[in-house]
Amino acid sequence: MNADQPPSGRLIKAPEHFLDPAGVATVFQQAKQGRRDFIRSAFAAAAGATASAAMAQGNPVPSEGGDPNILVPSEYATGLGQAVASGDGYGMPSQFERNVRRRQSPGLTQTAQASVSFAPLQSLFGIVTPSGLHFERHHQGWWDMDPAKHRFMINGLVNKPMVFTMDEIMRLPSVSRFHFIECGANTAVEWGNVAVPTVQYTHGMVSCSEFTGVPLITLLQLAGADLKKGKFVLAEGNDGSSMTRTIPMSLILSGEVLVAYGQNGEMLRPENGYPLRLVVPGVQGVSWVKYLRRVEVGDMPYATKDEAVHYMDLMPDGTHRQYTNIQECKSVVTTPSGGQVLLDKGYYNITGLAWSGRGKVRQVDVSVDGGRNWRRARLENPVMSKSLTRFNIDWVWDGKPAIIQSRATDETGYVQPTYQQLRKVRGTRSIYHNNAIQSWLVQESGEVKNVQLS
Amino acid sequence: MNADQPPSGRLIKAPEHFLDPAGVATVFQQAKQGRRDFIRSAFAAAAGATASAAMAQGNPVPSEGGDPNILVPSEYATGLGQAVASGDGYGMPSQFERNVRRRQSPGLTQTAQASVSFAPLQSLFGIVTPSGLHFERHHQGWWDMDPAKHRFMINGLVNKPMVFTMDEIMRLPSVSRFHFIECGANTAVEWGNVAVPTVQYTHGMVSCSEFTGVPLITLLQLAGADLKKGKFVLAEGNDGSSMTRTIPMSLILSGEVLVAYGQNGEMLRPENGYPLRLVVPGVQGVSWVKYLRRVEVGDMPYATKDEAVHYMDLMPDGTHRQYTNIQECKSVVTTPSGGQVLLDKGYYNITGLAWSGRGKVRQVDVSVDGGRNWRRARLENPVMSKSLTRFNIDWVWDGKPAIIQSRATDETGYVQPTYQQLRKVRGTRSIYHNNAIQSWLVQESGEVKNVQLS
Repeated sequence: MNADQPPSGRLIKAPEHFLDPAGVATVFQQAKQGRRDFIRSAFAAAAGATASAAMAQGNPVPSEGGDPNILVPSEYATGLGQAVASGDGYGMPSQFERNVRRRQSPGLTQTAQASVSFAPLQSLFGIVTPSGLHFERHHQGWWDMDPAKHRFMINGLVNKPMVFTMDEIMRLPSVSRFHFIECGANTAVEWGNVAVPTVQYTHGMVSCSEFTGVPLITLLQLAGADLKKGKFVLAEGNDGSSMTRTIPMSLILSGEVLVAYGQNGEMLRPENGYPLRLVVPGVQGVSWVKYLRRVEVGDMPYATKDEAVHYMDLMPDGTHRQYTNIQECKSVVTTPSGGQVLLDKGYYNITGLAWSGRGKVRQVDVSVDGGRNWRRARLENPVMSKSLTRFNIDWVWDGKPAIIQSRATDETGYVQPTYQQLRKVRGTRSIYHNNAIQSWLVQESGEVKNVQLS
Repeated sequence: MNADQPPSGRLIKAPEHFLDPAGVATVFQQAKQGRRDFIRSAFAAAAGATASAAMAQGNPVPSEGGDPNILVPSEYATGLGQAVASGDGYGMPSQFERNVRRRQSPGLTQTAQASVSFAPLQSLFGIVTPSGLHFERHHQGWWDMDPAKHRFMINGLVNKPMVFTMDEIMRLPSVSRFHFIECGANTAVEWGNVAVPTVQYTHGMVSCSEFTGVPLITLLQLAGADLKKGKFVLAEGNDGSSMTRTIPMSLILSGEVLVAYGQNGEMLRPENGYPLRLVVPGVQGVSWVKYLRRVEVGDMPYATKDEAVHYMDLMPDGTHRQYTNIQECKSVVTTPSGGQVLLDKGYYNITGLAWSGRGKVRQVDVSVDGGRNWRRARLENPVMSKSLTRFNIDWVWDGKPAIIQSRATDETGYVQPTYQQLRKVRGTRSIYHNNAIQSWLVQESGEVKNVQLS
């Protein structure tokens, strides 16, 4: 896998936003000269220590490089800006954020229509994934389907097979809920070794949105589904990928499975199944069938091609584990992470994401010494079931090599495993369902690397 | 105020998404002929009644108009779709969602740089406002400021005035929180009468995002702010609007006020203050200073132009009420709402938004008879402090005129007032802080109108 990603993260968080590659070297050099240990001192001050000499310079100082923004009116202050409702009434990110993009990993698949683009986790905040940066996994490319022509059918073990238009579905009782979606193959390339340099490529097939839709159970009841004989449903999309998937009725009865049209406040994006997709909280993404056009109620699993050939786990004894749908508890530090560079010693906010397909995240512990010592991270609210959870923790880097890890525990008590623990059960020949603890090595130079501990 | 908005909402929710204006007349005519009372029957079935004849047609029926999507492979199923990471790696809404736009109200202001664009609440789901549809209020236009040059200064009653770069701010301890922002002038034009037809224009100056940033108190502590003498701070932006605002220190001490750079997972959008804005939860939007470049700690309110001339409430006795910053508890039904048309009798999901600047929404009650009878709506989780809350409630329309209202109560016990109650205290000459109960009249024709009850 060739990572074509531009240099990712030279300063903590900021780099992709604020420094072009040419500027990085300069700043990095400045850091070595101690010009930017400002914040370390600052944080010491916050903790009650004496302010450093560098900070106690009295009145407002001109900013670095003599930028006049602060002391004299800037170019922005003396002109007239742009109008409201620019861009045809739909706003876009800053031009300075051009480097924050979802990215394909060239060579991972043979065509860009049956491929993956990864979300830039290293540049994201909080738990909402911007819909424009949501990861993609298509098996036959994506479509912008005409919703006026879209139909959704329910058949199989039902009293009255039904066909719905979008208008009809959107009149029904709806719910809105935050959930993560993770491809079963997220972190796949890390099974055997350290394959990719950045968190975008190691963990970027997870995203989180607020979904709005109709509980599937409501629709099944309308169709008079046989909820005794009907132990499973088959979900089918309207594209050519034939990604039919079996969903256990037990999940549907809980009311959690949605026939969704809304995502992050607006209609689903085309790449995410517009106008209708299945939302199966906690379950791997392949089951969240896009362009949903049909569910069929049946009495046994359907063993479709992507259940009988793909999305299975090859175990050490040579057998295949099938229907391992639930995404187990997992976490990853997104900053500092591979490809980023710490400019100097001192204070950093370590931040990352945790999630569990079995409920809420109960706690996240962070180690900066490769797992010998752990400290409890602060979880940002709200902590929701089967949603991403953002964690933050303070760290003062002493400039020596450090190995940063996070370890999540969910409300069932399940603890995210080390690679050693995971491989003991699963071997090394799997593709799917790798939820091991990720390690990032901070080198003395400040450069952060993807490593695995033996 | 001339509303240039295209016909908004002919079917409940769906219209803007799925029907072009030309198609509306046809469908509406069909509704009159009873062709689309499908869902009413369907909901009756869900409630345990007998399925209607129309539904009990046996096996999968061809969809309306003979659309072959369902029974034979569609055009989408036999071709190859578009590639991952299209559009330069930043995805966009469907072409069929072109009508879901934030919109200026022509005539409201004299230039489009000192104006408003309203969020299309009638088309939004859940609580997250897509950043591209977030309402705008600019006093001097918006800028896409270079974050590498941006500086943030703290001065006034501090031990050591400080200047931060963006890189420095983004290394500090951060938090992520969901909050609404509402312009103090939201619903302003409704003070005297029914001025605009749709919820986009009556209530579209409210939005909700997940914000990420550094608590302002952290930064003030770094600068050694005098938290005894310093009872207020002045916040100043880097544009030409001179929108300086006084923020009470009490709000800052709570830790809620943020110096924010993140919004809905990515960097703030330029229209929303990129790269840095103040987040003042519960307080009117004008205090959330965009392009934030400075806060000054002081010992008294600053009485800036927008505190001494604008954003004040003219009371019935001729005095002006100043510094009424907190946005009181408020709600609005977004569907059905003005400009939409109900196609037929039967089941509808009434949905809307509620919020309070003083904490969480405790309950929302909905009336369909102009306030004589109320039923408790279902609140979607999570219900968060100073955030939008989505509510939903079932309704079966009998085809007679109906007046739909929502009334929110917050955790302090404050109940959203009627227009009569509000005017009794506030008179009719205000511009700001109108949180009265909104009424939507559903006419026999199905058309929904903005009305005020005397």
